[in-house]
Amino acid sequence: MSPSERTPSAPVALQFLERWSPRAFSQEPVSREELSSLFEAARWAPSCFNEQPWLFVYGADGEDRARIEPLLVEGNRAWARKAPVLGVVFARKNFARNGAPNRWASFDSGAASMSLALQALDLGLSTHFMGGFDEAAAHEALNVPRDEFEAMAAFAIGRRGDPGELEQSMRERERPSDRKDRSEVAVEGRYRT
Amino acid sequence: MSPSERTPSAPVALQFLERWSPRAFSQEPVSREELSSLFEAARWAPSCFNEQPWLFVYGADGEDRARIEPLLVEGNRAWARKAPVLGVVFARKNFARNGAPNRWASFDSGAASMSLALQALDLGLSTHFMGGFDEAAAHEALNVPRDEFEAMAAFAIGRRGDPGELEQSMRERERPSDRKDRSEVAVEGRYRT
Repeated sequence: MSPSERTPSAPVALQFLERWSPRAFSQEPVSREELSSLFEAARWAPSCFNEQPWLFVYGADGEDRARIEPLLVEGNRAWARKAPVLGVVFARKNFARNGAPNRWASFDSGAASMSLALQALDLGLSTHFMGGFDEAAAHEALNVPRDEFEAMAAFAIGRRGDPGELEQSMRERERPSDRKDRSEVAVEGRYRT
Repeated sequence: MSPSERTPSAPVALQFLERWSPRAFSQEPVSREELSSLFEAARWAPSCFNEQPWLFVYGADGEDRARIEPLLVEGNRAWARKAPVLGVVFARKNFARNGAPNRWASFDSGAASMSLALQALDLGLSTHFMGGFDEAAAHEALNVPRDEFEAMAAFAIGRRGDPGELEQSMRERERPSDRKDRSEVAVEGRYRT
């Protein structure tokens, strides 16, 4: 399935169909200017009380990048080792305004990450967010206190690479994923289980 | 501050600056076709194991809409009473694949909600997500089981209305909000507290 084979069930801006999470990344670097645009897009996401509870910590080369790769589970490291930029997005657990738990921290961080992914697409870059990483090690390696933040997802950023260089099992999955029927996730009226 | 007065600190697609959460909504209906496009955009968001843990339950008129308005806290009802579409987004707590807790359910639902908000903007519509609503009542009114889902946010969808019709305190806040400095939310290397 190529991107254009994602068939929407209603008219939708192309960016939502064209964004998908590849495993084949090119090692070509991402510039600091490109990265600034990505985090800038994330910055303007909405959040509860405008708390902006997200924190992106990333490495684009050298020691900074090398610090992150070992945090990934083996299945992710197998492909992410080529991605030029790796990072982790954290959610700030409590409101800065009053210290109370922020139950929207993760939700809002997801919104900011989506903005980042779409800005990346706009620049011809791909993103792949991953749940498979060592949270405790991520806090430790990136110096992000566990009592203040929750490590939500690791991410890879770069340009699409040659799927032929992937392990065979991954090569076969190197295409945009499909989705449930819209009626399963958007219901007018009341939900019926 | 008008939308164009949001000054980005790096080049970024206009959609991220132009999206903000108004309180002044016009009562002009949103068509079923427009709503389909919004939820379609949400549908293609990425998620852990492609679980798509989001569930949008909404009302666009009559009893369906009337069921949602009373779920909002008073401060939100004061302005949302004009919005033609109201809804609640829920996150499915456990993975369908194995029943284990999905700690990314809220993060992924936030990503889907961001897609919805950007697709709305593309159609000239505005969205306003709200943390202030009665969760227990939302589960009950919308028939969404609490053991399976967490009510994350209420939302209003519609076209921008006349700010002059808002209560004065809200009228003064009827403009795009600003953000923290990018350096506070995106860090290369290691985080320093």
